[in-house]
Amino acid sequence: MRGAVLYGPRDVRFEERETPKVIKPTDAIIRISATCVCGSDLWPYRGIQPVAQPTPMGHEYCGIVEEVGSAVKSVKPGQFVIGSFFASDNTCPICQIGYQSSCQHAEFVGTAQAPVLRVPLADGTLVPTPEVPSQDLVPNLLTLSDVMGTGWFAADAANVRPGSTIAVVGDGAVGLLGILSAKQMGAERIIAMSSHKSRQKLALEFGATDIVTERADEGVARIKQLTNGIGADAVLECVGTQESMMQAIHSTRPGGSVGYVGVPHGVELNGEELFYTHVHLHGGPAPVRRFLPELIDLVWNGKINPGKVFDLTLPLDQVAEGYCAMDERRAIKTLLRP
Amino acid sequence: MRGAVLYGPRDVRFEERETPKVIKPTDAIIRISATCVCGSDLWPYRGIQPVAQPTPMGHEYCGIVEEVGSAVKSVKPGQFVIGSFFASDNTCPICQIGYQSSCQHAEFVGTAQAPVLRVPLADGTLVPTPEVPSQDLVPNLLTLSDVMGTGWFAADAANVRPGSTIAVVGDGAVGLLGILSAKQMGAERIIAMSSHKSRQKLALEFGATDIVTERADEGVARIKQLTNGIGADAVLECVGTQESMMQAIHSTRPGGSVGYVGVPHGVELNGEELFYTHVHLHGGPAPVRRFLPELIDLVWNGKINPGKVFDLTLPLDQVAEGYCAMDERRAIKTLLRP
Repeated sequence: MRGAVLYGPRDVRFEERETPKVIKPTDAIIRISATCVCGSDLWPYRGIQPVAQPTPMGHEYCGIVEEVGSAVKSVKPGQFVIGSFFASDNTCPICQIGYQSSCQHAEFVGTAQAPVLRVPLADGTLVPTPEVPSQDLVPNLLTLSDVMGTGWFAADAANVRPGSTIAVVGDGAVGLLGILSAKQMGAERIIAMSSHKSRQKLALEFGATDIVTERADEGVARIKQLTNGIGADAVLECVGTQESMMQAIHSTRPGGSVGYVGVPHGVELNGEELFYTHVHLHGGPAPVRRFLPELIDLVWNGKINPGKVFDLTLPLDQVAEGYCAMDERRAIKTLLRP
Repeated sequence: MRGAVLYGPRDVRFEERETPKVIKPTDAIIRISATCVCGSDLWPYRGIQPVAQPTPMGHEYCGIVEEVGSAVKSVKPGQFVIGSFFASDNTCPICQIGYQSSCQHAEFVGTAQAPVLRVPLADGTLVPTPEVPSQDLVPNLLTLSDVMGTGWFAADAANVRPGSTIAVVGDGAVGLLGILSAKQMGAERIIAMSSHKSRQKLALEFGATDIVTERADEGVARIKQLTNGIGADAVLECVGTQESMMQAIHSTRPGGSVGYVGVPHGVELNGEELFYTHVHLHGGPAPVRRFLPELIDLVWNGKINPGKVFDLTLPLDQVAEGYCAMDERRAIKTLLRP
């Protein structure tokens, strides 16, 4: 088969890769219905997180089970399934408390931009949909594999409650789905920080009530103006830079919470400064598996349409253009069809 | 009057200071019944946090109101009162959500090692006891001004719940009272990290169920051994160094919480490392005012005896020895009587 391989900065190739097969009895092999490019794929794509060797790419996936190992009990060939970007056993003490992305046997699923994918720990990782979905549901379901689950975790980690006033730092797909998540959780006021018209539009469609176009200290000042001078109850940090992190922390009221899901790159937090902000800080790689049943239910019943973040759909063999369009911010998120 | 003044490293003098008087109509003047030396006083005492000029010391206090300004309504002369080390108006939006130590009009109360003290914002800061207490209750009540309120906040910030397994980093008075607080909040297993016999003894008396004598990585490994391999649900960080902070973070299970109340000195947190630990982080200067009514009630009714942390009582004029004994770890905490 052919799949995506990153060779170096801005050099993604679609080329021959070995077709995955069952290696361990707990594996499943999936025929991918749709995959996509993640904002976090742009870190190595841009060379900020260098790759040591040609590296297969992709960690968001859904599709039809083709084959399962002998120990797999909860999914079977023919089922449509979604899984997290971290495979998990879903039975260890860490999984049991809902942090499957820190599972004691966690494995990163990193070869999903391809027609066929091996998923380890299939029983603990994959969740089947009630039946094989219609094509129009597939983009919505695909988001649950990471981007929607991550936006949901940002809101959950930021302790969003009915009536909360929240702010979102980052207008990428995760930030936008953080808005949708906060709206679902009952946030009353949702301040989106964005200076891009098309992203502002989607933010408003997902439930944003206010748009702040300023960044850094000016953005913080604007958030304070909008929140009784004290900052938001909950702030979702969906970027991962020093600037975005400090913008999130300083936009939060004392006692409020920052949910941070942007993978931090070069972020250093001064302990004393953090101490006096009085904020709660929680985040990390989203434990998507925890949220999958609830989110599948919301999508299946038409309550949420997170697939709207895909504003570019390409055949998988044009994966390089998919990366390029996101890198240049011509696209919010690229869906790829094998 | 004479009070404590810090001149430089290990140079505390008991010398003539101006007797405080009402300056603003919201002030109260208190005749101090007892004051004490705080672990945080040792930072400037040791020269780690240099003082630019001779500096009056002390921020833990309780005593009898002598005089109030014309605007003060909730306390009156003759009442026995306790207040936080941060004066607060208790009416601003930040106070209203329970973070009085970040009050929009917060003022540090820093001249309490003296016979008489001016407390700003008296209505929002001072809480009277039901009546003037007997002498034996005074040490217990004094702790509520900071050290007990801070230990309580550490447990509160670490989200201690009935049945929790917790660990405490730091065997100073705050850490010991964090143990007492966690016990009150229903923690089932309380692991004290201490290698000092006398402090271990008090830790056990306050409710610790296990003692870990190892520090740093070895201490973390020991905590993991005791907690199903994953770490404690809640860890109270009561020191404020890089080592203690990392020890706390690494002793916490994914999804667990670190409550940090040791004023950070030279602490830097790497964003990416923190991200993958999956811990909740919350702390800061304790909003003591929020807890005062409940804690006064617990002391008044004999439910808790936090005054046991005072293992040295001196007349105020021996304040220098009070600092020295704590610096050399001969005393856990020094109570001073004017």
